[in-house]
Amino acid sequence: MATLSPLHGLRLALATTRNWALVGTIIMLGACAFAPTPHGTADLATVIARADGQVAILDTTAGQWTGKINGLGDLSHASIVYARDGRQAFVFGRDGGLTKIDILSHTILARSMQAGNSIGGAISQDGKLVAVANYEPGGVRVFDSETLKLVADIPTFIGDGPDRSKVIGLVDAPGNRFIFTLWDAGEIWVADFSSSNKPAIKRYDNIGTNPYDALITPDGRYYIAGLFGEDGMAMLDLWHPEHGVRRILDHYGKGENRLPVYKMPHLEGWAMAGNRAFVPAVGHHEVLVIDTRNWKEVGRIPVHGQPVFVMAHPDGKHVWVNFSVPDYDTVQVIDTESLKITGELKPGTGVLHMEFSPRGDQVWLSVRDENKVIGYNPYTLEPIAELPLPSPSGIFMSHRAGRIGL
Amino acid sequence: MATLSPLHGLRLALATTRNWALVGTIIMLGACAFAPTPHGTADLATVIARADGQVAILDTTAGQWTGKINGLGDLSHASIVYARDGRQAFVFGRDGGLTKIDILSHTILARSMQAGNSIGGAISQDGKLVAVANYEPGGVRVFDSETLKLVADIPTFIGDGPDRSKVIGLVDAPGNRFIFTLWDAGEIWVADFSSSNKPAIKRYDNIGTNPYDALITPDGRYYIAGLFGEDGMAMLDLWHPEHGVRRILDHYGKGENRLPVYKMPHLEGWAMAGNRAFVPAVGHHEVLVIDTRNWKEVGRIPVHGQPVFVMAHPDGKHVWVNFSVPDYDTVQVIDTESLKITGELKPGTGVLHMEFSPRGDQVWLSVRDENKVIGYNPYTLEPIAELPLPSPSGIFMSHRAGRIGL
Repeated sequence: MATLSPLHGLRLALATTRNWALVGTIIMLGACAFAPTPHGTADLATVIARADGQVAILDTTAGQWTGKINGLGDLSHASIVYARDGRQAFVFGRDGGLTKIDILSHTILARSMQAGNSIGGAISQDGKLVAVANYEPGGVRVFDSETLKLVADIPTFIGDGPDRSKVIGLVDAPGNRFIFTLWDAGEIWVADFSSSNKPAIKRYDNIGTNPYDALITPDGRYYIAGLFGEDGMAMLDLWHPEHGVRRILDHYGKGENRLPVYKMPHLEGWAMAGNRAFVPAVGHHEVLVIDTRNWKEVGRIPVHGQPVFVMAHPDGKHVWVNFSVPDYDTVQVIDTESLKITGELKPGTGVLHMEFSPRGDQVWLSVRDENKVIGYNPYTLEPIAELPLPSPSGIFMSHRAGRIGL
Repeated sequence: MATLSPLHGLRLALATTRNWALVGTIIMLGACAFAPTPHGTADLATVIARADGQVAILDTTAGQWTGKINGLGDLSHASIVYARDGRQAFVFGRDGGLTKIDILSHTILARSMQAGNSIGGAISQDGKLVAVANYEPGGVRVFDSETLKLVADIPTFIGDGPDRSKVIGLVDAPGNRFIFTLWDAGEIWVADFSSSNKPAIKRYDNIGTNPYDALITPDGRYYIAGLFGEDGMAMLDLWHPEHGVRRILDHYGKGENRLPVYKMPHLEGWAMAGNRAFVPAVGHHEVLVIDTRNWKEVGRIPVHGQPVFVMAHPDGKHVWVNFSVPDYDTVQVIDTESLKITGELKPGTGVLHMEFSPRGDQVWLSVRDENKVIGYNPYTLEPIAELPLPSPSGIFMSHRAGRIGL
């Protein structure tokens, strides 16, 4: 080591000092960047850009992206739920990745490859637990929403055997419960975390062949599973679990002139408006109208193609429908009172998802093949913003933080 | 200056370095402190401390106050609505004060003494307009939600004359409309701001004597006004304004053995659960059960006192009821299916307000005479937090930002 004069020492000190101050400043500015931007969360949405493993944050008031979060893995068929504060969200990737993100600072807070193959998740009513539905290994894993530490592992054994069933249709229900179906076993399970993190599990068997998706009504009362292997649907009334699972809509999925089914409709896309549910028909160019007081079909509305999502406007006066290939360039609007089609949009090829702002002043559409997300005024059908995003799919408004089953 | 050895120089350098780093850190931490706190908004609530002209911000996840905002004037009978972002809120004081607050930074963003005497307000569906119902001078004033600049002034003249009516029952409705009643004129007015800030106004007259309060159903379809001067209620179906206002619940307010009415019940406190509305009876120890398909009374539930608010748990299985003096130390829980009372709490004297967390894991009560706000688990009725606050009254969860009519 060369000798240093005192001056050299001081110069070095100052140089070092400046650097340290700079480093400190950079570190602290970095920390500030992690602190929130001056924005609330209630008017933000997350949008999945599935080709890029990216989630974009949409400011629905400004009609602009506020930022993007990368590195989220395989986001095909990904979904998002929100923490209690509406700021933190949980991204469920198809590859088993569970990622906790901060939608204000656009950062990843925690990430876990919790399984090999997953299909969505849910957050408990009290916000403390996040559950993931896994195909491989079959089961549900439940994590502390703060730390993403494993809290409970629920392997879904088929019968008494060693084989596990794939899990699907996982939702939260009131009373800190998670509900899900077993694809390979034809069962519905209710895991009750209200007393402790060792859940009380109730199994309902023989619900039908290959439940492929499920929904829970907005009040959290009825859990309804669609069946891939047979017609009809399986319904559990959570106010009366003692009545067991009963079959509804015996003809759901049936039909003499059934067309090839291009895509099984999403059940999360059932629209509830007043006493009616508006339900995509399987393999038909129809939306079914169901009376939710007795769960009987009371009407069919001819539409442009095979419906995928049927979404209710928050005011209940209209439902919006998108379609599977080859009709996925079109969205139709149905009046829930007259049951007539009152509007139609052609936003572009590949309309995958629609999401209303919570009070219904806006609706946002993902148009995958055009690489854009478009916002509309749902009353005038005029566009309000068009934003570029590679291969957008699911759109999730943050008000879901306050909704049962979302 | 003493000569320094190279070693001294290095020591000094390091010492100075540490100080600079420390100073930088302190400066930047200071800057960070002015930046918003690291919190979302979806789990926050505002609570009015009316004796002190103060609003306290409640973190419902932590069960703690995050801060208080002072200088809000006369907050007796005050109410709060939220901006689209859930972070900014508008406080309507009794003294005509309209104050825009930031619930993360705990600051006043803007304030206007917009009238002499006011009774609540609303925010438009698109979040751009804030309307205030005024007694003096009688009318509605509408402000830009960003700047609080006056956008529209709607004086409520009685008939064609120069006198103005007091305004009450102001709510927002889908399609950027505000709806309100004229106490002195017996009218309902609909002000439609969907096309411009010069509203199209539609007047409905002869609705009944002295409408004293009103509500709008959660989907924004039915506007219902209570009548102080006669029995029955006035209802406008906003899907069919061409049908005009019709009378429902002819006997509402009537009864052979009517007791002295200590406090007119709040209509905002109607609970909608499934096809039923649970409504406080006027001057009776009863909650009325209404079928919302035909707006007929279908039952009466005997309760502990004269009900003031009847609030539905978000899961629709129970409604909670509080009472007017002298029974305002009690809260009762009614099962909406069996119509039986299934729970009772005695939180203390002066239970003025109840508010559920949006997914129903908590309920928060203002206990005025005990100067505290208490949170409960509504399933177990166990308290989860008890927080001091002088004379608390209204509690407003921020998820109201995403609800029609709230």
